[in-house]
Order: sequence, then C-alpha cells, then structure tokens
Amino acid sequence: MTTTTTTAATPVAPSRGALRPLGLGEIEITGGFWAERQAVNATRTLAHIEHWLEREGWIGNFDAAAAGTLGARTGREFSDSEVYKLLEAMAWEIGRSNDADLDRRYTALVHRVSLAQEPDGYLNTAFGRPGQGDRYSDLEWGHELYCYGHLFQAAVARLRTRPSADDGLVDVARRAADHVVAVFGPDGRVAVCGHAEIEPALAELGRATGESRYVEQAALFVARRGTGTLGDIEYGRGYYQDDVPVREATVLRGHAVRANYLAAGAVDVAVETDDSELLTALTTQWENTVARRTYITGGQGSHHLDESFGEDFVLPPDRAYSETCAGVGSIMFSWRLLLAQGLSRYADLIERTLYNVVATSPSHDGTSFYYTNTLHQRRPGTVPATDVAVPRASSSMRAPWFAVSCCPPNVARTLASLASYVATTDDDGLQLHQYAPARIRTVLPNGRPIAVDVETGYPHDGVVRVTVVDSDDEPWTLRMRVPSWAAGATLRTPDGVRPVPVGSVSVRRTFAAGDVVELMLPVGPRLSVADPRIDAVRGCVAVESGPLVLAVESVDLGESGVSADVADVRLDAAVPLHVVDGRVVATLGLERSTDEPWPYALHEAATSGATAEVPLVEYHDWANRGPSTMRVWIPLV
Amino acid sequence: MTTTTTTAATPVAPSRGALRPLGLGEIEITGGFWAERQAVNATRTLAHIEHWLEREGWIGNFDAAAAGTLGARTGREFSDSEVYKLLEAMAWEIGRSNDADLDRRYTALVHRVSLAQEPDGYLNTAFGRPGQGDRYSDLEWGHELYCYGHLFQAAVARLRTRPSADDGLVDVARRAADHVVAVFGPDGRVAVCGHAEIEPALAELGRATGESRYVEQAALFVARRGTGTLGDIEYGRGYYQDDVPVREATVLRGHAVRANYLAAGAVDVAVETDDSELLTALTTQWENTVARRTYITGGQGSHHLDESFGEDFVLPPDRAYSETCAGVGSIMFSWRLLLAQGLSRYADLIERTLYNVVATSPSHDGTSFYYTNTLHQRRPGTVPATDVAVPRASSSMRAPWFAVSCCPPNVARTLASLASYVATTDDDGLQLHQYAPARIRTVLPNGRPIAVDVETGYPHDGVVRVTVVDSDDEPWTLRMRVPSWAAGATLRTPDGVRPVPVGSVSVRRTFAAGDVVELMLPVGPRLSVADPRIDAVRGCVAVESGPLVLAVESVDLGESGVSADVADVRLDAAVPLHVVDGRVVATLGLERSTDEPWPYALHEAATSGATAEVPLVEYHDWANRGPSTMRVWIPLV
Repeated sequence: MTTTTTTAATPVAPSRGALRPLGLGEIEITGGFWAERQAVNATRTLAHIEHWLEREGWIGNFDAAAAGTLGARTGREFSDSEVYKLLEAMAWEIGRSNDADLDRRYTALVHRVSLAQEPDGYLNTAFGRPGQGDRYSDLEWGHELYCYGHLFQAAVARLRTRPSADDGLVDVARRAADHVVAVFGPDGRVAVCGHAEIEPALAELGRATGESRYVEQAALFVARRGTGTLGDIEYGRGYYQDDVPVREATVLRGHAVRANYLAAGAVDVAVETDDSELLTALTTQWENTVARRTYITGGQGSHHLDESFGEDFVLPPDRAYSETCAGVGSIMFSWRLLLAQGLSRYADLIERTLYNVVATSPSHDGTSFYYTNTLHQRRPGTVPATDVAVPRASSSMRAPWFAVSCCPPNVARTLASLASYVATTDDDGLQLHQYAPARIRTVLPNGRPIAVDVETGYPHDGVVRVTVVDSDDEPWTLRMRVPSWAAGATLRTPDGVRPVPVGSVSVRRTFAAGDVVELMLPVGPRLSVADPRIDAVRGCVAVESGPLVLAVESVDLGESGVSADVADVRLDAAVPLHVVDGRVVATLGLERSTDEPWPYALHEAATSGATAEVPLVEYHDWANRGPSTMRVWIPLV
Repeated sequence: MTTTTTTAATPVAPSRGALRPLGLGEIEITGGFWAERQAVNATRTLAHIEHWLEREGWIGNFDAAAAGTLGARTGREFSDSEVYKLLEAMAWEIGRSNDADLDRRYTALVHRVSLAQEPDGYLNTAFGRPGQGDRYSDLEWGHELYCYGHLFQAAVARLRTRPSADDGLVDVARRAADHVVAVFGPDGRVAVCGHAEIEPALAELGRATGESRYVEQAALFVARRGTGTLGDIEYGRGYYQDDVPVREATVLRGHAVRANYLAAGAVDVAVETDDSELLTALTTQWENTVARRTYITGGQGSHHLDESFGEDFVLPPDRAYSETCAGVGSIMFSWRLLLAQGLSRYADLIERTLYNVVATSPSHDGTSFYYTNTLHQRRPGTVPATDVAVPRASSSMRAPWFAVSCCPPNVARTLASLASYVATTDDDGLQLHQYAPARIRTVLPNGRPIAVDVETGYPHDGVVRVTVVDSDDEPWTLRMRVPSWAAGATLRTPDGVRPVPVGSVSVRRTFAAGDVVELMLPVGPRLSVADPRIDAVRGCVAVESGPLVLAVESVDLGESGVSADVADVRLDAAVPLHVVDGRVVATLGLERSTDEPWPYALHEAATSGATAEVPLVEYHDWANRGPSTMRVWIPLV
C-alpha cells in the first residue's frame, strides 16, 4: 500500500505540519466503545437522518429549486447544509465500510442536489428566487457561505474516499467554489459569512483538489473576519467573531460553533501560508479557552441566549449549553493544532470531548439526540414525540429531530470518519492519540511500511496493547499519549516495565513482528475539583474514571432508599469510591431539603446521617433509562 | 380631610380587603433615602424620559398616526406603552408635588396621544394601517392589549390625582376600554395578549370609574390565560403563562415581567369577584416563587434567553437577569396581596425589592439605568455612549436608553407614587409597612381622623420614631412591620421598652397628641447563606444590613492593596464585620488565582494569608464610581 498526503482518506490533510493523519484505508477501528457507535451510526443514524430530511422537505427544496417550483420553502435558511452534512457522513461511511446500498443512496441524493445548482455555480435554495431575498443580501444570518462550506467538506470526503467516482458532487463543489472566488475574491466584495465554516472547507477543498485559489480565498475570509464587515447585531459582533481580528484575539468568544469552525479554518490557513504569528495567536486562544471556558466534559458554551461562550469561568452546570456541534467544532480545532504541533494536550481535549459530548448526544439506538448537553438536570425531562421536530433546546430528553438539526448529521460525519483521528505518522514513526481496538496498516511519509494491531478494553480497562505485525529492520518510534489525568501510568516493553510521565511516552527501537508494547493507564475512579473561579461548582467534586466523566442519576438513587432527588446527595471525599460489577459506586450522604419561606438565612444544614451505596452512571449514558434528574458535580459533605 | 376608597390618589384601590391604601393626599415622604430619589425623579428623570421619547420618535408616532402620515414607524411594536408609562409617572408626580410646569407638559402630551385614537376607540401606532399588520393579528408579540394596559394605568393615575381635570386621557382610556370589551368581551374573540398587563389595568380602571364591565373583562382575560389561545412558540406557552390556568398554577414561570403583571391582575380579579380559590392559588404561587425563584435582592428571572424565571433554585448571581421591570411587577403583585391579606411578609419582599432592585436601576443623577441587575460583575463594565440607545442587556454600566426601554419609565412611575406603599389603614387603626420620614394625615374607613409623623434615618439607622400629631380620644392600633431579618428588635412606648418578634407589632391604646412610639430595628451587618439547593452560591455568604444587600466592589479593593479582582476575595465568617464612617467593613482574605492548563484537578487552594479591611458597597449604589467588578456572594475562607 502506498499513500500520499493528498490522497489519504481523511478529513484534514495539511501540506505541512508535525504529524501526518492516517486515512480510512490505513486504519480501522475493530471493536469496543467506538466500533459499536460506528455500527449504530451506519445501520440506524444515517437512514434516520435521510428519513427526516425527506420528511421535512429539506431535500425536496433542492428538487423544487431544480424544477423552478420552489414556492413556500420548508426549513430554516440553512437547511441545505444538513443535506450536505449527511452527504459527508455517507461518503465517509462508504469509505469506511464499502456499503453498496449506501453508495446508491448517496449517488441518488447527489444527483438531486446537483440539479439545483445554477449555471454560474450559485447553489442555495433559500435565496435568489422571486419571493426570496437576493443572493448574499443577508450575510449576517443568511448562511449561504456556511452552506457552501458543508458542501465542500462533503465533496472532500468523496474525493478522498472514492477519487475515481464520477458522481458529480466534486464538480458541483468546484463550480460553487469558483463562484465564491469570483464574488468574494481579492477583487470582489469585501465580506464574510455570519457563520464561519467555509474557511476550513475552502482550505480543505484546495488541499484536496490542488487548487491554491481556494486556500487563498480561505485566507482572505480569515483576514477579513474581525474587521467589522458584518452588522452590529444585538448580541454584538463578537457573536460571529467579527469584533477582533483572528490574529489579535486571545480567547474564543461568541457563538461557540462559529468560534471553533473559524479557529479550525484559521489553523488551516496559518499552516498553508506558513504564518507562525497566526498559529501562535490560535494556540493562545486554545489555551485560554481550555483553561477558562470549557466544561469538565469538554463541552463549550454556557449562554442559551446566543449559544455562546460565557465570560471566563462562567460555567454553570445547570445552564450548560455545551452544544453537541460546538464539541464537534472543538475537535476540528484541536485536531488541526495537533497535526501542526504534535502536542498531546490537543488529543487529551479531543478524547474528553468525544467521550463526554459526541458520545452523549445520540441515544443507544442512534435515532434521537441531544442538541445541548447539560451537566445538571434538575427536573425529570419530558420524552419528545417521535414524529415531531422540536425546538433546538426545548426538550430535556433526546429528540429525534430539531427545527435546527445540525447536531445529528454532525455527529454522524464525526463517527463515520473517527478512525482518522486515532493515529498519525511522521518520518520517525507512529503516534497513537486515541485508544481503541484498531488495525493499522500504513506507510511512513518516508516510505517505510508499518503495521500494528491495538487491543484494549479502554476506556473501562486501562491496558492498551500494541502488537507489531510488520516492520522493516530499522528503528522507528512508537509514541503513545499518556492522558493528563493518568499520573502513575506504566509501560511494558520487551525491555520491561517502567513508570511513564503524563504527556506521551516514546519507544524507539527496531521492532519485529510480534513485539508487544503495553501501556497501563490508571482508569480507576478519581475526584476532581474546579478552579475556585468557576463559582458555580464551589464546594463540589466530580467523579471521573479515565476519560469518562461520571454522574449521579436519579434512577440509581431510587433503588438506594436514600432519596430520589439528586439535590439531596452529598459526597464525603474521605470515603473511597469502589467499583462493583464494572460500575463506580459512591457512598453518598443525604441532606434533607426543606423549603424555608425565604431561602437566605444563617441556617445549619440538616444532614440526616443516612448514607447509601449509589452506582454512578457514565455521563454519556445518562437519560437512557427514562426521564430522570442528574448531576455531574456532587456537593461535598 | 375626608376620603373614600374610590378617590384615594393611589395606584391600587380594591373594593374590599384587609387594608385600605393611603392616597398621595394622605401621606408624604418628607426626607431620607426615598425622598432624595423622588426629587431626582421629578427634576431629572421625567424630563430625561420625555427627551428620549421625542428623540427616538416614539411620541412622534402618535403625531404621524393622527396626521395619517405614519410611514416608517420608529421603535418596537410596544413603544406606545413607554409614552403611557411616562404619562402615568407624570400624573403621580403632579399629584405628589403640584408641579404646574409638569402639568402643562402632561396636558400637551395627552393631547398628542388622544389625536391618534380612531373613532371606534382603537389606539395603537403599530397596527391597522397600510403596510402594517392588521389589528390584533399578532397577539403573541403585537402587545396591543399590553399597551392599552399602560394607557389605562395612566388614566387611573390622572383620575385619582386630578379627578376634575378635563384633559382627555380618561376619556381616551374609556373609549379604548369599551372597544376592548366590544372586541374581546363575553361574546367576542376568545383571546388574550402575549404580554399580560391589561388585566390589572382594566380592573383598576373599573374600580376608578365604577364601570363593572372593565373588571369583568379583566376576569375574562385572567380566566382565558393558560388555555392555549396563544401560539406554541419556541420558548413554549409558559413564556406568556398560557401553559396552565392561573388558578391551577403553583409557581410563577416564564417571562418574569409578564408573570408578575398577570399575577397582580389575577389578585385584583380574585378580590373583586370574591374568588377565594383563585386568591389561594396566587398566594401559593407567591410563596413558592419567593422560596425558590427569587434572588436575595428580591430580583426575579435568571434566564437571559427569554427574560424568564429559571427552574426552582436556578439563581446564578453572574447570570442574574433580575430585570428592573420584573422587580416593579413583583411589587405590584405583593402589594395587592398585602392589601387583601394584611401579612407583613408581602411588605418584606416589597422593601427588599425597592432597596435592591428599584433603587439599583437609576444612576445618582437619574438619567441612566440598569435594565438587568446582575449580582456578580466579573469584568469591568463599559460606559455606554450617552447619545445612543443600547440593546436591553448589552451594557454592563447603566445606560441612558434602551431599544426596549420599559425600565426607565417603570421606575419613574413607581418612585412618583411610592408614598402610597408606605402605610395603610383599617377600621382599627394605622399600619406602617415601609419606614421613611413621613407625614401622615388620614381618616380611618370608619371616619376617625389620625395624624402621625414618622422620623427615621432608616435604612442606615434602625430607630423609627412615630409621633402622634392628632387623635380622637378612643383607642386605636398602630401596627408596625418588624422585618423578617430583624430578630432582636425592641419597641418603646409610653409604657416602656419591650422586645418584639419578627412579623409585626401592634400598639393599641388611646393615643394623645405628642405620644411617641419607637421601633428599634437591628440594622447592623449580618451574614446570610443560601438554601443548599441554590447551587450557584454554595460555600458563599452575603452580607446584609437591614434591608440592604451589600457587595464587594473592585474600586474598594484597589485601595486595600490586597487585589483588584473580586474573584480573589474570601471571607472568614468567624471574623466580625464592623462599621466605620457609616460603611460596613469586612476583613477579607486573598486567594491568589492562577491559571492551570486544565482547570479541573485535585488541587489545593493557594491562600496567601494576606488580609485587608475592605469597605462594602450598598448593592444599589454599585457602578456609580466608574467601571468595576462586583460580587454580592463572597466565598468563605
């Protein structure tokens, strides 16, 4: 097998950087936590999304546009993008599993989309027709360039997984991209889109097609952002990051999805244009955002009003917005920095976000989703009807579809391409960033073949075993990430067992087929407290286990006899946690809550003295047993 | 002086109930905290509002409507209501101070408004003309009935303060009310307005004019609310209380201003129709709202998204919405329950809300305002331009005007009529609910004259001295409220000094001119902690002094040498607070805050050991010394 940077079947393929990503042809997740979710995604979620896109008429909008009969259009102004996200997810899934039926459905859908494109390349069902707004007349809210972005990402997915397929989406994307360059290029209109997304997409389309004009256009959009070309709306220009130029900003702010998509695209531009100043600014933004504006789950965004980041340390668990798509965007941003710089911290955040945001959104059967991801549910949620789209944040249980339904296809495209985020190579060897049972058959950039298999029960078991299947007889380096929480990790190599520091561990040797390297990560339960400036969780602890955030869920309390209300529980940090039948069990005390006429007084807490052994739930798995209350942060006794 | 229930110059004059309110002709605030604010209101705020209403064209909309030239209307769809609120404030102020110039301005403004009324009584500048929506075509958001409500309250103010004035507003209101009854009456359209307000206003207009149809229409609107006549918007019907019938609800919910206005009107209806079931339901709603959904300041509403109540105990100080107008609405609701039932707890909440919400909104000079009232400012605010209206919640300093500018005139009408909330009578005597220097000359409902003077330095001094100026020679009862925080209060009467319990104290005797009763309330500083279910302030205390909530403001920290960041301060509950030069001073410790790359870990707080004496600021007075950070809830050491 040979591969080059430009043909790897991977979402992000920079032309330079510390690490080279593996394509879906080089790595396969063969079992475990993520393989299960990829299977559900393939067998249930993709069809579910396709069904709802048809049912809501969002695909039909393309048919009507092609037929010239588009009257009362259905869906929000950006609903085209959900069709593109589905196409991207389908393309990755076809690349992953070679599903012939899915390929037929994909091709048919591409055909319907392509018929709606206008002769000059413009493609959007919400603008430009009688009764609609003019093209690009509402860049603040119209989302036309955002929609192109998802179209381009879908085309990149197809181009990289089926480079010889002649099914048209790549041509549609190129025509649209040429149109964008013509309208918004160096001599065109000085403007950006209210919702960033075209920036990383144009960069990637440029990389995938070799068309440097697309990368240059991405650079132009990044450079214009923050110069006030968009209107000053009620939320302020910070909402769409048009308040401060990207290279001058110090932290992510405004709408959390927009902010992450923009940052991801800006990394692409910084890498392709070798702009170290811009890359340094983005690195600072990432650091400050992680240190001050990120939930323990990896979730981002605490304002419901504008789906935005709050100020530093404003991270209330019960008002967490933590939009699923912001998690996807955060992974996009971190992954690009990881490829550029090679630092484990980026993979740490990706892991945390995958397990506690991306995995939290879909239900077990992959047909209902969280749009937002609260860390504290105070009242049992309501089960949404299965046949009605709900407002984006109105339901407290997972819902089948939303009026704004970005999250389901965003999860789908992430899961379908997930293998590509597991490992990378450089001339010196192989780097493992995420731990899952996997089969890796790759060739280093300098042409040396490497084949390894990974076996692990992670995240529930901390042993990660790497077996070399094939290697030449020159030394190379196997680098394995040691998560920041994994103090006390050890490594077993053919030379013996040794302790390893957090960050990463490298084993450089002349490997032979059959050689085994085992990383032992301490995934037992641990307590975490928050920076005291995160006022909303003062006096509380969170229980974590490996990369998993745990929670108390009321369905487990009911059986304890202690209380059915998570408002009542207290944890004594001096009492050890233990594991029973694979579940972490906490000894929780009970404080009886009674109403006072006025709830502010000098009063003593009425601790009952009763305790109970309560199994905790993995946060991603909550609300799968019916309506319940839940909390991640548990008050200390 | 004689008076009857129907002619008392007071905003709320029920036809039955435990207590009878005093009109502005019977009571005058003669000095102190509130007299200062009434003076600023009269001399600065009313003219400021009038200026901005002209400048923004919201008065001009009426001129253009009258002239038939209303093209591009200015302001939001409910801007008419701000003109009516100003008229109400002017009417009370004229009634309070007999300002002849203000009376001329008032009359001129009434004239301009009245010309815009249509022959059938309809009056609204935003609907019913070519290019506008049809009348009552958007009851969810159109606010037409809401605007009538404020028109009616303005007319009531005039009718009660200048019953013989023939300046037209009362006629305008009657024509509009007759129109409303014709359209929405028993045989009319079964509908309510998306924003409650017409309910209390119709009830009061009915009381003031003796027109029972208006009270019946109010009852009809209250009965229809909660039956789903309004659309199911993204926020849900709970936003405008159309989710559950008023008599079945157990707590206020949804938009906090709407919820309180509706509850106030429902009390009016319950009292006028002698509906004890409805009154009991409203009492329960008040109790639960106070016990579970109210900030320590009395502020209500913790969701910025829809300006609404959060769920029980969701009261984050840094995301407090606590809209000024919700405070005004809460006073309206509590005052009506107080008149109906006579319980001190209602006056307790009114006092807390007056000092910590209503007094917080305006700046010292009465020309800039808070729309929302945060309890924790994390970053120094920005000073808004003095010549631009700002979005309602975008500025962190007081602003001169808002795109939605309900709060300035709502504060103005409350301050101008404030004397009417200080005391009441019944056949047995006089009740003092709020403490301010005052001159009271009234006649009990049974015809007995009573005259007393009140002297006090309250709220900074706890001694309230009541001197009887005139009394007949039969016994009567002087009842004085003892606030719920005032454990240890004492009372001095001609018979000596005795301790009194919280709630209220009654002195029944045959008073003679010159008799003095003195209530001594312990207004020294005290610490309060919150119900543990208010998770956002766990491990913190608030400092209160009498009815005043205090805060730490960064401008006072800078001089301490400890830190300029309120994030760093800690309070040791074992170290006593003291008072220096009239300011409460706390000994605050310092915890140095430093960023960790990831802010969740098992780490120890780095307490520096440094302490400093820091004077606290009265919460209502913060942000009057330039941009600053501030917090009410102070973490414990």
